[in-house]
Amino acid sequence: PAAPAAPPAPKALSYAERAKLCKNPMGRRIFETMERKKTNLCLAADVSTGAELLSIADSLGPHLCCLKTHCDVIAEWDDAFAAKLTALAEKHDFLIFEDRKFADIGNTVVMQYRGGVHKIASWSHITNAHVVPGPGVVQGLAEVGLPLGRGCLILAEMSSAGSLATGSYTAAAVEIARKNTNFVIGFIAQHNLTPDDPSLIVMTPGVKVGGGGDGLGQQYDGPDNVIGARGCDVLIVGRGIYEAKDVQAEATKYREAGWAAYLKRIAP
Amino acid sequence: PAAPAAPPAPKALSYAERAKLCKNPMGRRIFETMERKKTNLCLAADVSTGAELLSIADSLGPHLCCLKTHCDVIAEWDDAFAAKLTALAEKHDFLIFEDRKFADIGNTVVMQYRGGVHKIASWSHITNAHVVPGPGVVQGLAEVGLPLGRGCLILAEMSSAGSLATGSYTAAAVEIARKNTNFVIGFIAQHNLTPDDPSLIVMTPGVKVGGGGDGLGQQYDGPDNVIGARGCDVLIVGRGIYEAKDVQAEATKYREAGWAAYLKRIAP
Repeated sequence: PAAPAAPPAPKALSYAERAKLCKNPMGRRIFETMERKKTNLCLAADVSTGAELLSIADSLGPHLCCLKTHCDVIAEWDDAFAAKLTALAEKHDFLIFEDRKFADIGNTVVMQYRGGVHKIASWSHITNAHVVPGPGVVQGLAEVGLPLGRGCLILAEMSSAGSLATGSYTAAAVEIARKNTNFVIGFIAQHNLTPDDPSLIVMTPGVKVGGGGDGLGQQYDGPDNVIGARGCDVLIVGRGIYEAKDVQAEATKYREAGWAAYLKRIAP
Repeated sequence: PAAPAAPPAPKALSYAERAKLCKNPMGRRIFETMERKKTNLCLAADVSTGAELLSIADSLGPHLCCLKTHCDVIAEWDDAFAAKLTALAEKHDFLIFEDRKFADIGNTVVMQYRGGVHKIASWSHITNAHVVPGPGVVQGLAEVGLPLGRGCLILAEMSSAGSLATGSYTAAAVEIARKNTNFVIGFIAQHNLTPDDPSLIVMTPGVKVGGGGDGLGQQYDGPDNVIGARGCDVLIVGRGIYEAKDVQAEATKYREAGWAAYLKRIAP
């Protein structure tokens, strides 16, 4: 008998198709937002004053699927500030991703995620965690986040020089994610780590047109390569945009480059 | 010719002797404090209200070389609160160790350590870092901490179930510490990882008389084994003390057990 024909190459699913596969409401919502706004750009708003953060969120919000914050660098953070940021997220239809990099034992992250000055779980649609403490960090965060409908990204790879999130560490991170897809929506990573599970999203820092570094270990790659060859989903761009002379033009450039790379990937 | 005699077993140095070997002022100070107060007990004050934290610091301060805080779980944290904690540290002669577990790229941890609501570098004598981002995290923290005379512990091992800080990860963490001993004073670890460099201190969580676990992955071992067989220096004890019926008696028990184990180790 003739050998069976090779199976057709798997078709890359659209963000809209992947939204339907998500078990977590924020996983679904970010894919839907990307499709609706035609953007896979997440701005890393690494500014140190509240006024700058609100200004950036308002002026660049229309370009974004997601705004990545570091609430703990903002001196004037309080509940009223969080409410202003939430209002801008609603106005411009983006999600807030607090890049907290939780990295403690379960009992501690429960308190850190829910409480303190920042009350991160109350306003951040998405947060993230290092899995170096083991799966307890995800279980602790899920205790707080699941009842609020929040989602979590696992840091599986980092873009900084000498990162230890490689090899068996990355593999263990992927396993922890796979076992917790009610809460874990995907990864901070440099590659698509789960081609067999398109419900998981890959958000990728270290993106800059032209590449290069920052002198403190950060390394950069271009949008085409990140979305295309490496199969990532969301470009996380920071200083490359907000330190530009014309931030609107720069955000447009990244948004269009990211979307074109995505359309190319899903083209039949 | 007769074979040369085996070298004598290295004598375990006292905390006072090790203080003299430290390159960092906080490394020196914690060893001196331990010797002066005859305690190697660090209290993990994982409470969620400011009133509880201040109450514990004041009542248990005389037992401690160090108080470990999570400023980000205290809802009422502000500069005045930090000043109250600092006053108690001076009153009772202990150091404040903010267990922040910094784990981001250098550029970000500079802002997180210096700024935000918490201004951690301004009041925390010691903080700590995961090295999963690579050495840039330590370089970033040192930029802020060195001019203030602060010290940093590297998380080289964790006491939680399924920790990924093992094997080559732990070895890489030790290498990063060795290359930065102007700022790095030692480790959060479960063993003495650098017997050849007694200037580096080992602080160890997961200590509880009787052992056991907490249902979110934390695992415990007893004081004798931690200081004796495993060669650690500082016992980090939390719920084992402050959830006891008689917290003074419980703190005394841990302090005396830790000190007896230390005296046994350095006995000629």
